[in-house]
Amino acid sequence: MIRAYFNLPNWFSPKFGKYSWILQGVIMQNSKIVSKQKHIVLTSHPGGLASKPLSVHWGESEPSKRGPIIGTLTNPAHRNVIGTHSGSYSVYRALAVASGALQASHRADLTNTSPVVAIGPHPSWADANKIVALDPFGAMVGEAYADLYKQGYDIRPTIAITQAHINMPELQDAIAKGRLLVDGRIVKSGGSLVVTKIAIDPVWYLPGLAKRLKVGESDLRRALFQQTGGMYPELVTRPDLQVFLPPIGGITVYLLGDVAAITEPNRKLAVRVHDECNGSDVFGSDICTCRPYLVHGLEVCVQTAQEGGAGILVYFRKEGRALGEVTKFLVYNARKRQEGGDRADAYFSRTECVAGVQDMRFQELMPDVLHWLGITQIDRFVSMSDMKYNAIVNSGIKVINRIAIPEELIPADAQVEIAAKQAAGYYTEGSAPDAVTLTQIKGRNLVS
Amino acid sequence: MIRAYFNLPNWFSPKFGKYSWILQGVIMQNSKIVSKQKHIVLTSHPGGLASKPLSVHWGESEPSKRGPIIGTLTNPAHRNVIGTHSGSYSVYRALAVASGALQASHRADLTNTSPVVAIGPHPSWADANKIVALDPFGAMVGEAYADLYKQGYDIRPTIAITQAHINMPELQDAIAKGRLLVDGRIVKSGGSLVVTKIAIDPVWYLPGLAKRLKVGESDLRRALFQQTGGMYPELVTRPDLQVFLPPIGGITVYLLGDVAAITEPNRKLAVRVHDECNGSDVFGSDICTCRPYLVHGLEVCVQTAQEGGAGILVYFRKEGRALGEVTKFLVYNARKRQEGGDRADAYFSRTECVAGVQDMRFQELMPDVLHWLGITQIDRFVSMSDMKYNAIVNSGIKVINRIAIPEELIPADAQVEIAAKQAAGYYTEGSAPDAVTLTQIKGRNLVS
Repeated sequence: MIRAYFNLPNWFSPKFGKYSWILQGVIMQNSKIVSKQKHIVLTSHPGGLASKPLSVHWGESEPSKRGPIIGTLTNPAHRNVIGTHSGSYSVYRALAVASGALQASHRADLTNTSPVVAIGPHPSWADANKIVALDPFGAMVGEAYADLYKQGYDIRPTIAITQAHINMPELQDAIAKGRLLVDGRIVKSGGSLVVTKIAIDPVWYLPGLAKRLKVGESDLRRALFQQTGGMYPELVTRPDLQVFLPPIGGITVYLLGDVAAITEPNRKLAVRVHDECNGSDVFGSDICTCRPYLVHGLEVCVQTAQEGGAGILVYFRKEGRALGEVTKFLVYNARKRQEGGDRADAYFSRTECVAGVQDMRFQELMPDVLHWLGITQIDRFVSMSDMKYNAIVNSGIKVINRIAIPEELIPADAQVEIAAKQAAGYYTEGSAPDAVTLTQIKGRNLVS
Repeated sequence: MIRAYFNLPNWFSPKFGKYSWILQGVIMQNSKIVSKQKHIVLTSHPGGLASKPLSVHWGESEPSKRGPIIGTLTNPAHRNVIGTHSGSYSVYRALAVASGALQASHRADLTNTSPVVAIGPHPSWADANKIVALDPFGAMVGEAYADLYKQGYDIRPTIAITQAHINMPELQDAIAKGRLLVDGRIVKSGGSLVVTKIAIDPVWYLPGLAKRLKVGESDLRRALFQQTGGMYPELVTRPDLQVFLPPIGGITVYLLGDVAAITEPNRKLAVRVHDECNGSDVFGSDICTCRPYLVHGLEVCVQTAQEGGAGILVYFRKEGRALGEVTKFLVYNARKRQEGGDRADAYFSRTECVAGVQDMRFQELMPDVLHWLGITQIDRFVSMSDMKYNAIVNSGIKVINRIAIPEELIPADAQVEIAAKQAAGYYTEGSAPDAVTLTQIKGRNLVS
């Protein structure tokens, strides 16, 4: 038993139960909210006023045995996770409640929202080591936990599956140049692609995440708490809560062709895993190869789907190697202004000076979505990243061919990046540039 | 004085000072971290072992008087905010520390990272009501707090300003069709645009944010704490900390033309404020007008810059009306599957069923970036959103002309959205569709 003393602000005191408040914040033990959450009745012992939350047995093949992920705020007594739904957007949800635009008690009406295409279940769903960063049952909660809904549990989908038409100018050009064919099924006239789109929110199983990152669970929890400036004390006070819904961006999957082809060995599968680069993906910034490679990946996906296989493009919301765009732009300035200008041989060191590391994307967690899709073999892997390749292969997925970005798609100012990465282990069909060559590959000056 | 009791897990106990740990988590009072943060010495009274953190006087015109925003984790005693830097990416930073890839003690080497173009200071910077969601001094911390750096304070920029070339296929087409001219300065041959790019991390002044949203500060703090599932107890325990660095996405500004033109009354200014829609902005999903309008906005920005003015495109990381992409896709399914199919007259209600609100973007906070740029008048506002228009005008910025998206740029399946929005108050040069018309505007079926 530990004793902690602290003062509460005076303006805060009269408004709501102080003692229970802090406990709810710190421990989130079974609590029950009454009368529009103004007053909070809290029991500090499990099995008190409120019922014990449903437990989660990660890796169980039966959703009922695995247990639902409940991050609801409508009934804290039902919560069995740390954090809440919708990643970062929970902060906006909080603003909506504060401003009175949203009733805190609102429950999603999930009528007609169920997946358009069924994904899984796959054997990997029952492997607590294969999937640790998303909830394999996240899209099927409506059917899997129908009884619990009837009992009043507020269980939110963490995965949504829909279908859409997408259309990129570069693909229209590929059609005009005869590289892509309009088949009326996958590629419509006008260059529209028929895709299955899947949005995935992060759901972290902390013991599995720790194992994946080869750190102790307590060290992971402590770092997540301390290095975020004290986000979610439950990370260190509630080891019984093993699932964390982190306030970070999620994943989008674009699937072309027949879903069944993903798992049928005799049908080809193309995959590109792409990390967000808003400046290039949306605006075509020419200092990197992100959008050109993304588009090329989609082209390979379409071709593979048209050959009777399937193509998968996975888009991760991890801007600037998960360093964020502010750090990214600081690094751009440092690269362009350093002595000798922007050079391939100094490409990584500038990032390290500013961020302390070259990369924070943790590709070790990336293959989870591929295992969720049931992928065991990738015939065409459209990426040169050795980090991504190693993560995928080490996770037990076989990669047959790696496809580099075509030379003609590399923007002039992106030669620095591509050369530096090739020298650092990036896949290349040619030979990687040597140290001397690296010093000679220069980028554009900053102000132009 | 309040007394709180709780148990700590056994595996947790021996690892580090329990009592100080929780206090650090709950109160984050002046604490000092020794020997790689394994052991924590903490003083529960200000002015104890550690020095009192520098205070922030929001709205002061002098950065030295205003005080720096310090969200560092290298020395908790210096922290004067709730949360830490880089928005959501602080979670990845925590993983980097946990895995040993990043030294917790790392300080950014900011050599050569300073802004390429100077923005401000502007009168609005000294108005605590005009700017509440970003730090006006966020880009100039290097110069503004040079002395504090010498004293060992770890002050991070929350804004980074660089320059780049961007290139979008649609703009190349605009050049080919003669709508845009290559001038070698703003538009290079090949269609590349020379832009100033600005990345901005969120910095929330809570008293100002509460005032802007017309809620009490204590209610705002409580909602932010409770409706995120207990994120940052300091929100409710530390009223002395008035600044919050929320783990949400930030803002990117694309500036075309001469910065000086922004504030010179006789030079025209075009502005588009755009909220992220990854499916359309990157992949050209045809259920909305996001990318087409974004590109049209850039085109107007270029034209205005070429006329001797300036063009500004502001990109906000607020996916799917800040509801997140999972909710967005659930709503797509509900819209397409509802009785009678996807209809303009039921456009908003489907979102409300799932999310509880039509929108969570809080445009009230959007104008801050415009005030930070020194904007007082917008000659060409490239948006039909009445929410955005009202927020901007109510914030004291004059809007001369509103520019609707050209009819020919509206994708077929996006007619439902545009009609529903026009009926709801969206700006239109024609007449808004009536109730009968709304029932007749249908979208594509789900599976196609």
